[in-house]
Amino acid sequence: MWLRASCDLTFEISVPTPFILMLRPRSGAQQWISREEYRLEPSIPVYEFTDDYGNLCQRLVSPPGLFSIHTVADVMTADYVDQAPGAPFVPVQNLPDGVLSYLLPSRYCESEQFNQMAGEITAGYALGYDQVTAITEWLRTHIRYEPGSSDVPISAVDTNLRQVGVCRDLAHLGIALCRSLSIPARLVVGYLHGLQPMDLHAWFEAYVGDRWYTFDATQSELTAGYVAIGYGRDAADVAVYNQFGPSVYPVNQYVQVQRIQ
Amino acid sequence: MWLRASCDLTFEISVPTPFILMLRPRSGAQQWISREEYRLEPSIPVYEFTDDYGNLCQRLVSPPGLFSIHTVADVMTADYVDQAPGAPFVPVQNLPDGVLSYLLPSRYCESEQFNQMAGEITAGYALGYDQVTAITEWLRTHIRYEPGSSDVPISAVDTNLRQVGVCRDLAHLGIALCRSLSIPARLVVGYLHGLQPMDLHAWFEAYVGDRWYTFDATQSELTAGYVAIGYGRDAADVAVYNQFGPSVYPVNQYVQVQRIQ
Amino acid sequence: MWLRASCDLTFEISVPTPFILMLRPRSGAQQWISREEYRLEPSIPVYEFTDDYGNLCQRLVSPPGLFSIHTVADVMTADYVDQAPGAPFVPVQNLPDGVLSYLLPSRYCESEQFNQMAGEITAGYALGYDQVTAITEWLRTHIRYEPGSSDVPISAVDTNLRQVGVCRDLAHLGIALCRSLSIPARLVVGYLHGLQPMDLHAWFEAYVGDRWYTFDATQSELTAGYVAIGYGRDAADVAVYNQFGPSVYPVNQYVQVQRIQ
Amino acid sequence: MWLRASCDLTFEISVPTPFILMLRPRSGAQQWISREEYRLEPSIPVYEFTDDYGNLCQRLVSPPGLFSIHTVADVMTADYVDQAPGAPFVPVQNLPDGVLSYLLPSRYCESEQFNQMAGEITAGYALGYDQVTAITEWLRTHIRYEPGSSDVPISAVDTNLRQVGVCRDLAHLGIALCRSLSIPARLVVGYLHGLQPMDLHAWFEAYVGDRWYTFDATQSELTAGYVAIGYGRDAADVAVYNQFGPSVYPVNQYVQVQRIQ
Repeated sequence: MWLRASCDLTFEISVPTPFILMLRPRSGAQQWISREEYRLEPSIPVYEFTDDYGNLCQRLVSPPGLFSIHTVADVMTADYVDQAPGAPFVPVQNLPDGVLSYLLPSRYCESEQFNQMAGEITAGYALGYDQVTAITEWLRTHIRYEPGSSDVPISAVDTNLRQVGVCRDLAHLGIALCRSLSIPARLVVGYLHGLQPMDLHAWFEAYVGDRWYTFDATQSELTAGYVAIGYGRDAADVAVYNQFGPSVYPVNQYVQVQRIQ
Repeated sequence: MWLRASCDLTFEISVPTPFILMLRPRSGAQQWISREEYRLEPSIPVYEFTDDYGNLCQRLVSPPGLFSIHTVADVMTADYVDQAPGAPFVPVQNLPDGVLSYLLPSRYCESEQFNQMAGEITAGYALGYDQVTAITEWLRTHIRYEPGSSDVPISAVDTNLRQVGVCRDLAHLGIALCRSLSIPARLVVGYLHGLQPMDLHAWFEAYVGDRWYTFDATQSELTAGYVAIGYGRDAADVAVYNQFGPSVYPVNQYVQVQRIQ
Repeated sequence: MWLRASCDLTFEISVPTPFILMLRPRSGAQQWISREEYRLEPSIPVYEFTDDYGNLCQRLVSPPGLFSIHTVADVMTADYVDQAPGAPFVPVQNLPDGVLSYLLPSRYCESEQFNQMAGEITAGYALGYDQVTAITEWLRTHIRYEPGSSDVPISAVDTNLRQVGVCRDLAHLGIALCRSLSIPARLVVGYLHGLQPMDLHAWFEAYVGDRWYTFDATQSELTAGYVAIGYGRDAADVAVYNQFGPSVYPVNQYVQVQRIQ
Repeated sequence: MWLRASCDLTFEISVPTPFILMLRPRSGAQQWISREEYRLEPSIPVYEFTDDYGNLCQRLVSPPGLFSIHTVADVMTADYVDQAPGAPFVPVQNLPDGVLSYLLPSRYCESEQFNQMAGEITAGYALGYDQVTAITEWLRTHIRYEPGSSDVPISAVDTNLRQVGVCRDLAHLGIALCRSLSIPARLVVGYLHGLQPMDLHAWFEAYVGDRWYTFDATQSELTAGYVAIGYGRDAADVAVYNQFGPSVYPVNQYVQVQRIQ
């Protein structure tokens, strides 16, 4: 499936503000970027680096005034999302070194708080993929998915109390539950074709059966059309933009994902 | 200054338990390990890897029964700890790429909650090293250092409420306050010669004046004798031991740091 | 300066052939990629990874038949190339860890063979940048630059004997001479606006005065318009394409670099 | 099997000389270092870093006069070396990213020169492990192993001409032959219990059947007792010591490997 995904962001900046952006999707095992555009207005110096998770990040200092970012990517993604009911739990001692850090608690995923709850939710399920399916199903029925219900990231503990959240909040809770069962889990930020309402999206991946699998509690079923922009332990690592100094929010954020070809 | 630092840990294990240990100090810019010992009883297979922060970590599965770890290191450290009153704040855009992740909130350092408080504590101080000194001084006078007061890591927000903590808790709060001022900060776990009561120790480092500097709110002044074992964003990354499965605590933990030569 | 650089390659493949390509320039300190295209015909699965030098590499298996690659990049580069006559030699003990491997001999740069010759060429020059200038000047006057004179990489020793070479050969000899003086040096492959005849290009960088500087013995002076695609120790690391199995050469290779805006 | 391996090196230094040493074996999948010593005389500042291959390297500047290094390691190694006749060739497209660079030619392994010869040596053997066995057997019968026959590294092409070499030379030729068959291969430097005459040793590893296997053409059979100090593409990467400035050779080099426990 070929998709064209675009994101336009505009900020109103009052003082020169350092930004770290993460809006350039990478070609990887799951997707191939055949064309890409990344324009800034005004056109200012940018420096790109690769973070610890392999994400391409852009550093710049925005001058005061309107500052806008326009990105487009043409992406080939698989026609279906891999699923593997029954894929086994990987014992900690057999996990690859690079996956171990996704077992640890992180800013928005206080996994050490969820041992008992995760045990209850997954009771009776086979260890591994099926536990993560049980968690995702539980999220679907217990946490109301309400786009726009939170501005800033909410931690898993808080989302569990509120019982409502945006895509990122549901993902954080799913991640915390997985990790409390010693299943590595990570946040993915990106695009989803057909998302309603269209916006940037977040979901999570769990490591079972010797690879990462996609899970998304905000959708009733896993359809094709995911385009990953960034990976990390949680939203602290994977922010589409981080700015330093006075808070700024986009005065305009416009996202589109179309099928091409 | 030559030090011999040793740590003996014994666990009572009920079921085979995967462990990740971090008890092998590395030679680096600040210390040189000239002799080292790392013994396990029973003698079981161990696999060592380097984590994202450069720490040497040991993976193993402990069999049921008593499991003990005995480590000794002879270390040359500097005769004084570098201090640099007046060292300037490094604007975010000038920080090395590898330092940026130490600006982000993490599990036990909810830095995004401390903007106002950090501003008040450091009001009137020069940007950079002197702000961190003000934070350390504030911790000394406002948070009671009480070894043994908490078993598990407490986050910066909680430590600030309780006004009491162990070394790690004070370090977490110091780190959160620094990051909220856009000063990169990280946790260090290791040994301190002369610590009362002797035990493993934790302190923090802040990045100002183009390098990392040591800060320790648990001591009235910075004396020599620090030996670093591990670095990370907070205690989630830098755990002397992480075990997976039923919780275990050391039935014996014995730490010694002596001057040699 | 904004440039549009494109490269079209076509191969005639007899048996399924694994390729590793390196044709996606990265945004970095010296250049910003604002738009990019990367098309393959036929459209086959591609997997991208980052090599040890930070280059983006594409892995694929070409089916038999015609296989073509079409890449375009819109790049902002500096309006002039940084030069720093007098920039000092960096003593080995002060070099960053990551730069040390560029001191070692490599496949096409047998630097351990050039100690005496490098000493003679640079006699009387200040240590550092000026030595590299002397080497570049010596290459210009002693090794005839003849595009098309070699198909496969020739080592520095051989180029020195033949006294003629393509851009890559001159760069290899320049690198070997630098390293023999304990100056780190690396190969860069990419585009040069205005190159005659137009083709992919290669030049070298030397590390003096605490950063990498560009040198190019094939041009009478350093003009703006360099676009880097890949970096490495020599052509063994930085190949625009590496194929495994029977040798293949492009039946068509078409490169263009135009000024835009 | 528990071994105690020690190496004493003494140099006579005329001018202050920067060194990069590689004499600290790492605990890894194949070996566990339980005790270790690393002493320098005179006792000078040392800085340790991890190179691109995961080796621990020590940087220092030796003052003029006698400079000596004394290292000891107590190591647990397997009681036998894994062998896997029949282990299959891994097609290039299935190799892990991190292994690909071991397919490329390097300073002392001009693998692109050996296509025909490697084909002849391995004709009739199953692809993979058995090809490497054929290469090792060929080395045993065609290249005379003569400790002390070369001081500086000799490349694979030269060793093939001379038909005689030290352990490192045989390893280089073995590596070049493997790579020319698209089998990743790397050099290992370390200790071998029972080596005659005792000295530091070098052998090679080839990647077949989805992991690295040990090969050593200098021994009539693979016995246990290998302790790895460093890994790399060839001797340019894995030098027990690299010094910069006037050449120096050890005035004393004393190596011991004893069985303990």
